[in-house]
Amino acid sequence: MSLVVQKYGGSSVADAEKIKKVAKRVVEAKKRIDHIVVVVSALGDTTDELLSLARQVSSSPPEREMDMLLSTGEQVSMALLAMALNELGQEAISMTGQQVEILTDAGHTRARIRHIGAERVIRELRRGRVVVVAGFQGVTTDGEITTLGRGGSDTTAVALAAALHADYCEIYTDVDGVFTADPRLVSNARKLDRVSYMEMLEMAATGAKVLQARSVEYARKYGVRLYVRSSFHEGEGTWVVSEDEIMEKPIVSAVTHDFSEAKITVKGLPDKPGVAAQLFGTLAEANINVDMIIQNVSENALADISFTVGQEDLAKAKEVTLKIANQLGAEDCRFDENIAKVSLIGAGMRSHPGVAASMFNALADKGINIEMISTSPIKISCVVRKEEGEKAVKALHEHFGLSSEANG
Amino acid sequence: MSLVVQKYGGSSVADAEKIKKVAKRVVEAKKRIDHIVVVVSALGDTTDELLSLARQVSSSPPEREMDMLLSTGEQVSMALLAMALNELGQEAISMTGQQVEILTDAGHTRARIRHIGAERVIRELRRGRVVVVAGFQGVTTDGEITTLGRGGSDTTAVALAAALHADYCEIYTDVDGVFTADPRLVSNARKLDRVSYMEMLEMAATGAKVLQARSVEYARKYGVRLYVRSSFHEGEGTWVVSEDEIMEKPIVSAVTHDFSEAKITVKGLPDKPGVAAQLFGTLAEANINVDMIIQNVSENALADISFTVGQEDLAKAKEVTLKIANQLGAEDCRFDENIAKVSLIGAGMRSHPGVAASMFNALADKGINIEMISTSPIKISCVVRKEEGEKAVKALHEHFGLSSEANG
Repeated sequence: MSLVVQKYGGSSVADAEKIKKVAKRVVEAKKRIDHIVVVVSALGDTTDELLSLARQVSSSPPEREMDMLLSTGEQVSMALLAMALNELGQEAISMTGQQVEILTDAGHTRARIRHIGAERVIRELRRGRVVVVAGFQGVTTDGEITTLGRGGSDTTAVALAAALHADYCEIYTDVDGVFTADPRLVSNARKLDRVSYMEMLEMAATGAKVLQARSVEYARKYGVRLYVRSSFHEGEGTWVVSEDEIMEKPIVSAVTHDFSEAKITVKGLPDKPGVAAQLFGTLAEANINVDMIIQNVSENALADISFTVGQEDLAKAKEVTLKIANQLGAEDCRFDENIAKVSLIGAGMRSHPGVAASMFNALADKGINIEMISTSPIKISCVVRKEEGEKAVKALHEHFGLSSEANG
Repeated sequence: MSLVVQKYGGSSVADAEKIKKVAKRVVEAKKRIDHIVVVVSALGDTTDELLSLARQVSSSPPEREMDMLLSTGEQVSMALLAMALNELGQEAISMTGQQVEILTDAGHTRARIRHIGAERVIRELRRGRVVVVAGFQGVTTDGEITTLGRGGSDTTAVALAAALHADYCEIYTDVDGVFTADPRLVSNARKLDRVSYMEMLEMAATGAKVLQARSVEYARKYGVRLYVRSSFHEGEGTWVVSEDEIMEKPIVSAVTHDFSEAKITVKGLPDKPGVAAQLFGTLAEANINVDMIIQNVSENALADISFTVGQEDLAKAKEVTLKIANQLGAEDCRFDENIAKVSLIGAGMRSHPGVAASMFNALADKGINIEMISTSPIKISCVVRKEEGEKAVKALHEHFGLSSEANG
């Protein structure tokens, strides 16, 4: 018996017409697949509209009430899709996070899934029904409604696929799959047939928008095979699977970019134990996500620390950094929004030294200066001037031959 | 310790500005009242918008899915009101029908409340919080979301007031209270200070829109005192209470009208036992609400039966009636949408014979022909031509002196 979890994002269910198209697609799939569970996001702009209403009535809405509010979006789309499926003669039933028993912790607006019951999902599937599940939402053991944070519907789909031991989990989205670079920037970017969980995680962390890191982490942890494909046409997508499933491992799989970060530099910090811990501990307490961190020791036992944060956090980060830098006796703080992060991702890098040098050369050839460098076994990220970001992405995509099948 | 349940309808919470006004009103009330539970309807046109979406994806949406869909409306407004209250410094928490434990039967789209738990409501009230409850929705013991049908939020409010032994239940609406006639038709209609449950029930059944019959029935059954008032200004409203609480009982309290019914006449039915039962049994099976029923025996042991139904049910009623009339051997069926029902309501009628004759005279004086008559101890309804409906309402309001304080 085959079982597949399909997830449709907000743009795939933006209006009644699109919901009817999704229903047709599910009915088609039901001819080949025994059991289908569909996870849906909220209709198109619903979440933004609800957020706007919340902002109109409150400057700091309680997070519990935000969850109450936002979880309605998915409830609307799941009910409509179940109706559309029944209209096509396919018995279907919608279920809330509570009904599925998607139990989470009490971390409102960013809850984590603790356990999925899913007994009723299985019962309904056995009756021949398609089960339509609200993405993004869960419930605590106290019956409080929670939401899973950004990209939460992907997480719902992957977690359900794991709990139901699904054959795989299809993520329907408004792009055709995972590409060697953003096709809007690089016209000859190529769709990847397969990519490993680790590569996908690095891509998500370095700016690729197609999947949220959290759902990929979940998929990796539970060995859920993901298939990312377009909800608007039938073409092949991209498999996100374990490295063992990928025969031919290219050294470099993709170039990603992130133009939404800002750089903060604290200069002249006393170079003694505990300084970095104090700085980043304070930032963490203020709920500011720090991405890259670089430290150089300068003369006179003084250190410079640079790090990047999301531009949306910059205002808060500025305030916190200035305060703690002052306490620590730093000489100066600088804030720079004018940066781009460009990254090279590839599982094959592990066994091929010299990729970093090749990357730096490619950038130097184009006269692009590198301001920060950060590496992992399968990733190299460089921070450059923002106005050179696009040129850097194109240069690296070209240099590593990513547009053609054979690369290296 | 005082405890009041307040209910705000859709027009009172139509947008963010109105929700903020409601929040202010609740905060004001909290100064005088120890514990407040607020029941809210969906924002303005939300329910209509959701219904329209449902119709776009399905010609006959499953009722279970309709409940899933429609119950989101109240969840949005309750969360927003809770946010607005917190913003004003008043601790508040929103609760779904499920969280309140409003247990209903499984009659989707028209469920009936079986039991209200409300332990958590009491717990939250004791912590000094205002509890905001989603109207219109409940849950079955199986965890299925249900809705209570038209006017369901009023029923939620009254049922909660009963379960919590509230001092009274305030119904905030877009009219100022209960009037002697519809002020849009009768310019000198007078607001009633008090009206009895039975009178209010008859008024609701004969066309007054201010309260749904079901919530008034519930209030009467559990002795919940209702106070109907405007959500847009501070003026006095109308108390709906038991007859014992009303000192001075006018013979006639109000004139109501309903221009939304249609008349069906089945002519020449065999005048033998069981014929009416068969006719109305079949209509009931088809879920058609029949209002007035009149039967006259004509010559040759043949009977004519006339009855009224809502115009929205006329198409279905036509189909059912033609079929059953044919089976019963009736001579003819007639369908007439061009009618108005005009009613006189008053608890004092019970002890004052002659009101009916006075009513018929008043209509005759204006040359208005009566086509059907139906009475209860505290109500007389007449069906007239639709184009004479407004004239009839005005004539009766005038004749029974309802615009002045002293009437009869």
